[in-house]
Amino acid sequence: MKLYSYFRSSASYRVRIALNLKGLPYETVPVHLLKDGGQQFAPDYLKLNPDGVIPALIDDMQDQAAVLTQSLAIIEYLEETHPAPPLLPQDPVDRAYLRSIALTIACEIHPLNNLRVLRYLVRELKVGEDDKNAWYRHWCEHGLASVETLLARDKRTGMFCYGNTSTLADCFLVPQIANAQRMQCNLSGMPTIMRINDACLALDAFADAMPSRQPDAE
Amino acid sequence: MKLYSYFRSSASYRVRIALNLKGLPYETVPVHLLKDGGQQFAPDYLKLNPDGVIPALIDDMQDQAAVLTQSLAIIEYLEETHPAPPLLPQDPVDRAYLRSIALTIACEIHPLNNLRVLRYLVRELKVGEDDKNAWYRHWCEHGLASVETLLARDKRTGMFCYGNTSTLADCFLVPQIANAQRMQCNLSGMPTIMRINDACLALDAFADAMPSRQPDAE
Repeated sequence: MKLYSYFRSSASYRVRIALNLKGLPYETVPVHLLKDGGQQFAPDYLKLNPDGVIPALIDDMQDQAAVLTQSLAIIEYLEETHPAPPLLPQDPVDRAYLRSIALTIACEIHPLNNLRVLRYLVRELKVGEDDKNAWYRHWCEHGLASVETLLARDKRTGMFCYGNTSTLADCFLVPQIANAQRMQCNLSGMPTIMRINDACLALDAFADAMPSRQPDAE
Repeated sequence: MKLYSYFRSSASYRVRIALNLKGLPYETVPVHLLKDGGQQFAPDYLKLNPDGVIPALIDDMQDQAAVLTQSLAIIEYLEETHPAPPLLPQDPVDRAYLRSIALTIACEIHPLNNLRVLRYLVRELKVGEDDKNAWYRHWCEHGLASVETLLARDKRTGMFCYGNTSTLADCFLVPQIANAQRMQCNLSGMPTIMRINDACLALDAFADAMPSRQPDAE
């Protein structure tokens, strides 16, 4: 498999964790979001993903090499095609619960802090550096506080988001916390997610997926 | 089942379509996003969903009444617990493809045009009405253009996003087009998605889920 990835992209980071948890080898194809006016807008990449976002995964084990986009869709695909070890439990209510944690991060936090959105704020709306950073931190802190509330009160929470095995939800949580830390968000009232983050990063599958360990890291 | 819904919320609209396509009866519990400072922030609702967003679905057919949040997680749950008629095909590549269309809408368009985001633009960043509307249209038009490109070129596209049966992707597309039309986005270069939208709305499952037909419609 080939993963079109940028070391710092948290959506790519989610997929890297899932591939590692599944023990699936893959080749990284770096897509630099800042160089050459954004390599995600290069015609060849736009053929793969007309939306011009990363990651994209090519699974060349399929009859026709399949191009997959959107991190959650990619991870659900990996779960369906390589069920062991599972990233989702069997119970439908629990599956929905873990997907809702992933989606709170994927829909309520990350889209607002995307490079292209921050650029629009600066270029089109003339938002200054401080206001841009406050915007970033606002959505990140608000969303992660919701996840903290959910996890802190739920009996299913264990060493990880769900018991003592890492799941889909952990694949989304850890990269978002990395973003939050890089942007100096205030995570002081969030002991549950920080504890889970530490437990995850003690595993090779998570640690090897960190931005700093990628071939395109700067 | 009980659906916490606001007539105009496109995330609620997605779930209403899925419930209708599955033939599942449900009771609407209106959550008015504008009244009372936003009923989604009422303490009782925040107990259901600490993130303060709609929809939420309560499935009282489960042993312990399950509270489900995030529209995609809810629809995947409905698919798993009520498989017929299916909203996703069997092939994993095709499932990933349809999920990626849903996620392009759920992650790349809708979060940027949410009420709370538009409010932040106006209240915190002092963005004027014209710039706010341009922001809305920018993300909506850009994202829908990507979906148009995907669907226009793909052999799997039929009367609907995937062949001639409605799927998960249609549940996401139709509500987003409703938003786009309400905000007078330019959809003139998007004949494929507009054709699919018309085909969907000719079905009762979609038409009955429209904002104007909801009990809380204004």
